[in-house]
Amino acid sequence: GTDAVIGGFGGLFSLAAANSAYHAESPTLIGAIDGVGTKLKIAHTMGIHDTVGIDLVAMNVNDLVVQGAEPLFFLDCYSCGKLDVPTAASFVTGVADGCVQAGCALIGGETAEMPGLFIDETYDAVGAAVGAINTTGPNARKILPDTSAMKEGDVLLALASSGPHSNGYSLVRKVVERSGLSFHDPAPFTMPSFSSSSSSSSSSSTTSPTLGSALLTPTRIYVKPILKALAVPSSTSASSLAIKGLAHITGGGLVENVPRMLPQSLTAVIDASAWQLPPVFAWLKKTGNVSATEMARAFNCGVGMVIVVDQGSEAAVRSLFEAEGETVYQVGTLRARKAGEEGCVVDKLATWDL
Amino acid sequence: GTDAVIGGFGGLFSLAAANSAYHAESPTLIGAIDGVGTKLKIAHTMGIHDTVGIDLVAMNVNDLVVQGAEPLFFLDCYSCGKLDVPTAASFVTGVADGCVQAGCALIGGETAEMPGLFIDETYDAVGAAVGAINTTGPNARKILPDTSAMKEGDVLLALASSGPHSNGYSLVRKVVERSGLSFHDPAPFTMPSFSSSSSSSSSSSTTSPTLGSALLTPTRIYVKPILKALAVPSSTSASSLAIKGLAHITGGGLVENVPRMLPQSLTAVIDASAWQLPPVFAWLKKTGNVSATEMARAFNCGVGMVIVVDQGSEAAVRSLFEAEGETVYQVGTLRARKAGEEGCVVDKLATWDL
Repeated sequence: GTDAVIGGFGGLFSLAAANSAYHAESPTLIGAIDGVGTKLKIAHTMGIHDTVGIDLVAMNVNDLVVQGAEPLFFLDCYSCGKLDVPTAASFVTGVADGCVQAGCALIGGETAEMPGLFIDETYDAVGAAVGAINTTGPNARKILPDTSAMKEGDVLLALASSGPHSNGYSLVRKVVERSGLSFHDPAPFTMPSFSSSSSSSSSSSTTSPTLGSALLTPTRIYVKPILKALAVPSSTSASSLAIKGLAHITGGGLVENVPRMLPQSLTAVIDASAWQLPPVFAWLKKTGNVSATEMARAFNCGVGMVIVVDQGSEAAVRSLFEAEGETVYQVGTLRARKAGEEGCVVDKLATWDL
Repeated sequence: GTDAVIGGFGGLFSLAAANSAYHAESPTLIGAIDGVGTKLKIAHTMGIHDTVGIDLVAMNVNDLVVQGAEPLFFLDCYSCGKLDVPTAASFVTGVADGCVQAGCALIGGETAEMPGLFIDETYDAVGAAVGAINTTGPNARKILPDTSAMKEGDVLLALASSGPHSNGYSLVRKVVERSGLSFHDPAPFTMPSFSSSSSSSSSSSTTSPTLGSALLTPTRIYVKPILKALAVPSSTSASSLAIKGLAHITGGGLVENVPRMLPQSLTAVIDASAWQLPPVFAWLKKTGNVSATEMARAFNCGVGMVIVVDQGSEAAVRSLFEAEGETVYQVGTLRARKAGEEGCVVDKLATWDL
């Protein structure tokens, strides 16, 4: 019953195909597993542990929803050298918050104390999410991306990110070190989506957030708006859907994540001037002396999801996302891929140097 | 659709109850997440990484099968400071081997490099397993333990473990340190189930295993024999099943794990003289000067599963397990729990002191 693809997307498992005792219309399951990465080091430095709990859920459920799956449940495993109960409790509060945002159930967790493995009081956290999609019966839907439906002229919409999400944090930490700033200094950039939910940070926080707490802004969870948008019909054919594929922009940025949802025959041409490079990325770029090309490979650079939409349906999809509170950019189109060409070409990267 | 119980068992998720678009006869899903624990430190010392991959699968799938669920798929996440490809590859080979033993699909994995989190070249690994059980329709089965069916006189069978499995390794490492032996010295005890599969260990291994490789004997995976045994009908009532509950003996030993499958009204009375304390545990006990009571709480002490069987059906269940290659002990019975009494009483612990 398995159709395993290691890397790229979550793994698929067909219940109906697995065992004749399961009902033939049982859904296909999709599993994802991931950690938060070195963003945890900043959480450790700041003593803020709830936001990375949200990140843990986000990295997994966003990977499921790009396949068209509804996240069902989540499991987390928190590993440390010596358990500090307030830290672990704060972390799990964030996990629970993320699960609420994603509409999935937190059905289990494990806390492991492993002396001799972790430096100082650091911890690691890994989460797994399981989603489902009806692939048989009257409510059947296609697992995305639907590469066979994609064609030249399809429109690329993008959803704004809330910051670097949970990727590129080794580079973030290098840039901060180079800047000479402490994580406890005021952030030298604004975070539009910064909420005061993590105000437990430090006594020195007055009106503006610290650099550390700004960099801990949790990953945006796109599950609920995307699940709604997946129902939007194509404007050209009522029997097909407007959305043909989605890419969750994680490590590797636009350049590595967008091609994974495309057929070999098509290239995504993205116009980097279609949205403003958010202040946090502009600061990282300038302070770290990072080239625009390197930025596009290390970070989401302001867009957390890129979506392939049937040409003519982009207005309907856009307005649904905007009604759900998302910031939407029309960033490009698909065109025929030339021999030897990359699956994602980002034009006007020079606008990020201004 | 969730019926969450944190700790004890895997979390349950009813697909049918979750969403009216899923078929009413879709199965109930069960998820488990766990790591290998400090056994990884011995793997690191020995440079043997495949057996702990098997342990990772075992800890999760054994937790699912005690609920009566068929493990469907597995996901693993390998985290390290700096990736050593041969180490990670060897580890994943073990994970794949464990999945074959458990009859489940390895549908995804993640490898995370996180500089600054792990001491030296240590790594951590977390796995998640998802299983299913038909709880509606013509093939419906009960999620175990079926505490309402348990009664005084029910028989306790136990399945032999292959060693300490993946629990109690902080104590194991302390005892080894106290012994003055190196992990590369010959093991001062025999491991009946020791196979030469991990013979990549060291050049000094001649005929007998090293202490380190003996202690790395992988956790026994009980999935396939238990799934067969769950079909055995009760000898007293053809409409009910012989097996009413199972306990996977992990951290906390018999004393903490057995009561979790029992109703408040019953106590498991286990006779420690019903099986021989295996040589590895006898060595740990003697060398570490560990009391029998502490042994019963830290280790499985030779039994990896304890099973509640309807009185009169124990011969049928036992012969099925033996035909599947398991070593089976009849270790006790259930009786009415007295006020204030523990859920598991281990008698004749003194035989371990001989």
